[in-house]
Amino acid sequence: MTEAVQTRPGGRSARVRAAVHRAVEELAAAGPAETLTIPAVAARAGVHPTTVYRRWGSVGQLLADAATSRFSGNVVVPDTGSLAGDLERWMDDVATDLADPDVLALMRATIGSGPDGGCACAVDRHEQLGAIIEREQARGGKVPELERAVDMLLGPLYYRAIFAGQPASGEWARGLVAALLAG
Amino acid sequence: MTEAVQTRPGGRSARVRAAVHRAVEELAAAGPAETLTIPAVAARAGVHPTTVYRRWGSVGQLLADAATSRFSGNVVVPDTGSLAGDLERWMDDVATDLADPDVLALMRATIGSGPDGGCACAVDRHEQLGAIIEREQARGGKVPELERAVDMLLGPLYYRAIFAGQPASGEWARGLVAALLAG
Repeated sequence: MTEAVQTRPGGRSARVRAAVHRAVEELAAAGPAETLTIPAVAARAGVHPTTVYRRWGSVGQLLADAATSRFSGNVVVPDTGSLAGDLERWMDDVATDLADPDVLALMRATIGSGPDGGCACAVDRHEQLGAIIEREQARGGKVPELERAVDMLLGPLYYRAIFAGQPASGEWARGLVAALLAG
Repeated sequence: MTEAVQTRPGGRSARVRAAVHRAVEELAAAGPAETLTIPAVAARAGVHPTTVYRRWGSVGQLLADAATSRFSGNVVVPDTGSLAGDLERWMDDVATDLADPDVLALMRATIGSGPDGGCACAVDRHEQLGAIIEREQARGGKVPELERAVDMLLGPLYYRAIFAGQPASGEWARGLVAALLAG
C-alpha cells in the first residue's frame, strides 16, 4: 500500500473511483431493505415477529402504516375563516414538520413505499390540502384546482426542505399562496 | 401465541402498534448509516478501506461525490435556440432520469448529505437551470429569477416523481414552463 495515488484518466485511480461509486449505488439500492426487515423491527419493538407479520403482512405495508400514523398526527387542518389564512397556517405547520430530522428519516425510508411508488408521507398532505379547498368551496369562495395547488405549494415546499436544504421562510410561503390564489 | 388480537384503544394491541411504529422510526433513522459504511463500500468495490478513507474522508463526502458524478452525467443542458424550448427539453430529460429506480435509490441515500443538509443530487440541477437562464440572458431575452424557476419547475417535478409517484407528462411539464414564463 505504498504506491502513489494516480490521477491519470483511465488509470487505476479512475477505475477505483468507478468501482467505489458503483458499490455506493448498489448499497444504496439495497439499503433500507437490509436494516428495515420485519425481524429487525420485531426485535427492536420487543414483540414476536409473528405478531408483526400477522398484523402488517409486509415491510411495505408496515412502513406505509407507520408513515401514515406519524404524518397524520402532527399537522391538522386549520380553520382561520379564509382560504389564504388556512393555506398560510397549514404551509407553516408542514414546513415546521419537515424541519424535524426524525420526520426526514422516516420520509426517506418510506419514499417508494406509498401508492403508485410514491411516499406514504405525502398521502395525508394531499388529503389535507383537498379538505382546505373543499371548506372554501363550502363557504362559497373561488378555489384553485387541487392538482395545481399541489404543484405550486407542496412541490416547492418539499423541494426546498428536502433537496435544497433551505428553510422555508414565512414570507416565501405566503408568496407561494399569493401566486396560487392570483392565478 | 393463541390469544386473539385485541383492538381496544389503549390495550395490548395499541401498545404493540406504538412499539412497532417506534422501532420503524428508529431503524429508519439508523438505516443508511448501517449499510452504507466505508468498510462495506470498500469490500463491495474490492479495494482496501484505506484507499477509500484517504480519498473521500467520510461517508458523507463519498455519497456527495457519487451523487454528483451520477447526476451530472445523465442530463445535459440543451441548446434549442429559445428559453421555452431549452426548459421543455431539459424538464423532459430530468423527468426521464427521475423515473429510473437506481436514480431514486441513490437520491434517497443522499438526502441530507448535500450542502446545508439538502441533497447532493439537486446541486447539479440548480446549476443547469442557472446555465439555461444565463444563456437566454446572453441572447438578450427576458428571464425569470433562478429561485422562482426552481420553485415552479424543479419543485413540482421532484414532488410528483418522488412523493406522489405520478409520472410527469410532457403536456404537464410544458404547462409549468408556460406558467413560469408568463409570470
